[in-house]
Amino acid sequence: MEQRTQGTPVRRGRGRRPADEVRADVLAAAGALLLRDGLAAFTFERVAQEAGVSKTTLHKWWSSRGTLALDGYFHAVESALAFPDTGDIGTDLTSQVRAFVRLLTKTPAGRIIGGLIGQAQTDPDLAAALSRRYTQPRRELAVATMRRAQDRGQLRADVDPRVLVDQLWGACYHRLLLPDEPLTEEFAEQLVANLLRGVGTG
Amino acid sequence: MEQRTQGTPVRRGRGRRPADEVRADVLAAAGALLLRDGLAAFTFERVAQEAGVSKTTLHKWWSSRGTLALDGYFHAVESALAFPDTGDIGTDLTSQVRAFVRLLTKTPAGRIIGGLIGQAQTDPDLAAALSRRYTQPRRELAVATMRRAQDRGQLRADVDPRVLVDQLWGACYHRLLLPDEPLTEEFAEQLVANLLRGVGTG
Repeated sequence: MEQRTQGTPVRRGRGRRPADEVRADVLAAAGALLLRDGLAAFTFERVAQEAGVSKTTLHKWWSSRGTLALDGYFHAVESALAFPDTGDIGTDLTSQVRAFVRLLTKTPAGRIIGGLIGQAQTDPDLAAALSRRYTQPRRELAVATMRRAQDRGQLRADVDPRVLVDQLWGACYHRLLLPDEPLTEEFAEQLVANLLRGVGTG
Repeated sequence: MEQRTQGTPVRRGRGRRPADEVRADVLAAAGALLLRDGLAAFTFERVAQEAGVSKTTLHKWWSSRGTLALDGYFHAVESALAFPDTGDIGTDLTSQVRAFVRLLTKTPAGRIIGGLIGQAQTDPDLAAALSRRYTQPRRELAVATMRRAQDRGQLRADVDPRVLVDQLWGACYHRLLLPDEPLTEEFAEQLVANLLRGVGTG
């Protein structure tokens, strides 16, 4: 958008950086703020301050505090939730689900995503944003990993990987949101083992 | 508590009935009101009106609207969520999880329990009540059913039934709270089949 006369030195002040660079700074600041101080302390004001941008800029890109928090959350946890690909689906699922459990239990991420899912139950806009910006993309990554395993013959071809998403990561969310039983890495291992080996004797 | 001179006719007016009878009336009224009009319309006032008791009586037994709603919910859904015992764990789990899905999708129960779980994320008292009054007792019923199947040799003895609770009912809650994929009876059947048969090829 910005017009610049050739030869003019680039101003490094705010409003002059390319939009995608500013956006990346905002997401990094939002993610760091969320994981450090939690959802209650998360405001447009503070993100603007930490990212060195104006509140006007933030409001231009994010319609609500909830959607900014979601994008910041996604950004912050993306590397922790990467899907490994060792070629063995049992190994890959176990290490990914264990990493997910660690993220939920050893960092403020669990309380944050729990809070967002909770709010989404009575806030249709947040629910739509949560799905589009976070849970759908995460779900697709998991399904793609499992489809590759089906192509390699490691998972039954007649099984719907979308159902397995609910029986692995969904089971973890269940213990996060309804903490009647502990959410542990051993639990993550059992989730994968139960599905791969089966629990029936027939 | 009540003192009555022998021979005096029993007054049927409010405040004279035995406490457990009044309590049962309140729970029935609370459950019916919840399933009919949802959580937003659920107030002490309206429950008192429909049950024909005073608000003072309600406040004596329930410290908050949330705990009264929980007890009403439990009461209302108890028969729909009974655990069958045909002697075959596959048949029993499939029909129970299908009934759970029907309850969540074909009645207002899904929105109600979703709303309660959502509120519980930021309300520690409600979270404690939800666990003690609803999810723990439901969990225990499921575990008891699966332990019987282990005793009959239909489920592997080395599997923890508490983990299966998260992979069956927890998977349904996942689709209820994060509705990226449909919550159907076919899904319920797949949940049980995946676990009993296993999805690995090894």
